[in-house]
Parts: sequence; C-alpha cells; structure tokens
Amino acid sequence: MSGTIYGVGLGPGDPDLMSVRADRLVRNARHVAFFRKEGRAGRARKIVDGMLHETATEFAMEYPVTTEIPVSDPRYNEALSGFYADCTTQLRDLAGTGEDIVVLCEGDPFFYGSFMHLYSRLHGVVPVTVIPAITGMSAAWTATGAPITWGDDILSTVMGTLEEEALTSAMKAADALIVMKIGRNLPKVRRALAASGKADRAVLVEYASMSDQTIRPLAEVNGETLPYFSIIVVHGQGRRP
Amino acid sequence: MSGTIYGVGLGPGDPDLMSVRADRLVRNARHVAFFRKEGRAGRARKIVDGMLHETATEFAMEYPVTTEIPVSDPRYNEALSGFYADCTTQLRDLAGTGEDIVVLCEGDPFFYGSFMHLYSRLHGVVPVTVIPAITGMSAAWTATGAPITWGDDILSTVMGTLEEEALTSAMKAADALIVMKIGRNLPKVRRALAASGKADRAVLVEYASMSDQTIRPLAEVNGETLPYFSIIVVHGQGRRP
Repeated sequence: MSGTIYGVGLGPGDPDLMSVRADRLVRNARHVAFFRKEGRAGRARKIVDGMLHETATEFAMEYPVTTEIPVSDPRYNEALSGFYADCTTQLRDLAGTGEDIVVLCEGDPFFYGSFMHLYSRLHGVVPVTVIPAITGMSAAWTATGAPITWGDDILSTVMGTLEEEALTSAMKAADALIVMKIGRNLPKVRRALAASGKADRAVLVEYASMSDQTIRPLAEVNGETLPYFSIIVVHGQGRRP
Repeated sequence: MSGTIYGVGLGPGDPDLMSVRADRLVRNARHVAFFRKEGRAGRARKIVDGMLHETATEFAMEYPVTTEIPVSDPRYNEALSGFYADCTTQLRDLAGTGEDIVVLCEGDPFFYGSFMHLYSRLHGVVPVTVIPAITGMSAAWTATGAPITWGDDILSTVMGTLEEEALTSAMKAADALIVMKIGRNLPKVRRALAASGKADRAVLVEYASMSDQTIRPLAEVNGETLPYFSIIVVHGQGRRP
C-alpha cells in the first residue's frame, strides 16, 4: 500500500493564516519535503519553523537554477525538468514504502506554484492530495485595507514576466489587477501600468502578512527591481450600494 | 474604548479550511454577526455550526432583497444601502460599548464579499480588522484536480452578471478563467465561453469543498440556471518544464 503525498498550501507566510487542516498535517507529518534555493533555509520551510514533529525527516529539494538562466533559454527547461523528475522519483519511492509525505507549498499549490510540476508527474502514479490555501494576493489586498473587487469588476492576475505588449493589453482589459513575478521586470511593469491608465492607482505590497510587511503607492517606490514577495495591487472601482 | 469588529473570512465552506486565526476568533467570539436571506439559516452561519461558544450572542443581518429586484433597478440600490447603513449602526453601537464582534464572511471578505459594504461604512469610525481566507475559486480549482495557472498565464475572474459583450472580450483576453455569479446568467455565460473559444475546456464545480461537491464538464450540464455556489473553471495551459 502506497502512502499519500500531500501538497499542503501554507498560505501567504503568517503561520496563523494556515488552514486548520494544513496546520494539523504539518504538525503530524513524519516526512516533510520542500523546495529551496541552494544555500537558503527555504521560504516554505521557514513558515513552519517550530511546528514540525521532532522525529520528522526533512527533504530539501534544491532548485538547480532560479534566475541565473533566462526562462527562454532551453537549458533552463532542461535543468528544471530533470530536477522535477528526480524529486518525483524520490517522493514516489518513499511513498511506495507506505509513508505519507507532506510537501510544503507557499501560497496555494495550484496557483503558479512549484508543486504543480511534481503533481503533474505524480498524479495517477501515487495518491496525491492537494490542500488549497490563502493566496499571497489575498494577503496583499487585505494588507492595503481596501476591497479588491466590487460588483461586476473583472480581476486579472498577470505576471511581470509577460512581454510588454501582452502585459499592457491584459491590464487594459481588467478593472482590478494583481501583478506578481515582478523582480527585475519592474520598469516594464511600470510602463505597462502607465499605458493602461492604472499607474496612479497601483499599490505595492511587500511581504504581505509577514512581520516585515510594507504597503506603499507604487509611484513612491524608487529603484528598478523588487524582492520576490512583492505584489502590485490595483483596486476595482465597481458598483456598490 | 471601542471594541473591534473582525471581518472573518471563513473560506469556501469546509470548516477545516478556515485559517487557524479564523477558527480561534470564531470559537472565542462573544458576539457573532452574519448575513442571511430571510427565512434561511445563512450560509456563513452554517459553516461554523457547532463551533460557537454557548454564551455567544448572534445577530442575523437579513437582506431586504436578493434576486427579486434586478441589480439595475434603483430600488435595489436604495433597499441595500439603507440595509447596510442600518447594520453598520447596530454594529458600531455594540462595538461602542467595548465589545468585540466577529462578522462571519463566506470566502475572502475583500473578494466580492458583502462585508465590504459594512467595511466601507465602518472603516475609520471603529477599529476593523479583516482576516483573509481561502477563496471559493481556490477550492474550485483544487477540486478539479488540475492547476489553474502555469508560467505566464493570465487568470481573469469574471462575473456572469456582466453584459455578454464585456464577458466575451474578458474571456478572450485571458488564458485561465474563473466565472462566478452564474445563476440565471448561464445561457449568456455559455455563449460567451463559446465565442471566446473556451467552452470545451470549461469545468463546472458546485459546492466546492463541501460534502455535496460535484465536478462536471460544463458541456455535460443541462438546464438554464445554476445554484449560487457554482463556479466555472477554465484551466490555463501555459509553459512548464
């Protein structure tokens, strides 16, 4: 009998925002796996600091590449697909011995998450259960102190990694906006926001729900790059009674 | 000293998917308020069945109108704005006596939620704290067993209450889609999905995360109306290693 692999969404970062189910799964896990960048503690692992059972084994899955090679370079895909296949094999073998494994996932596992790359390889091979979670964007709009969408507002989530033209037209087509994966794409994101008439409503939230959370109008932010945990929020202005 | 009004997101319906913070606030609340349709138990209230403290007081805020008057009719806005103003007064007066109040919110309070209409009237008047939650759409895409977005996918959330032309163009502009507020708008939503080339990928999820959850290709669904808790999911097909 195979064990089950749980893709457990941890939410935006504050452990108090984990679901009751996620909290229970994490605290009772005998085997815990998580992604991290080489030489780092790992963002998902840090969220559960102090929560793991003392006998839990830990499997750190270290990305062979993050931002060193452009996504468009074939070597990026090669390196990552080999890495995901390798992680899959190890998780599958451990589950094959009857052990359950909790894979720690930042945010919601099925929403632009790394776990999806394991899920697509494990699904149908061993039992996999996914636990949804509060997204980073929910924590970001909550942090701004204003609702993200009203009435019939169209909310679009766009990645800063898109081409400028695609970014601009997606921004124009939406009433409310979330921009993620900004990093070094900030100048391009700023131009697209300006071209879509939304620059002056853009709010930057960094480290939403975490102790170092900051909220600023994007117009007051200097520099050409942003940390990973940055989300731009543009609130909808739809009808309301 | 005024008490605090907590807008507590309960998530999609399964109490196990409430956040640890929401679970704690709900169990310890002395005063609990929630919206409901007249003559009904209330969907938010049902999620916390068995969780409230035995001495908790309950304040049911009953909508004067839900679907009996079209949203476009000025009487709809009048009835609802009077209702929200009245609820606000009662909550503010209770908070004014120093009592904390938990307002139960389905889904995430700032994401197309009714609590927003209280929040906008209470904000700056009494202390208000909002607790984000897992959205119904997260539960819906998790239920489908497939990730909603990959790579640079644009995800748009659209309401079935939009005009057909606006609905179609928003659907065309997105890679992945969530459609909510469907109800009697189903025939229009179907036409817009077909016109945007996404009808055959549309999956209908009803009662996501609840005991009566169902998942079906939309093409296999008959009828012209859907229950309130219905969400249509169209998965993105973006790049992946």
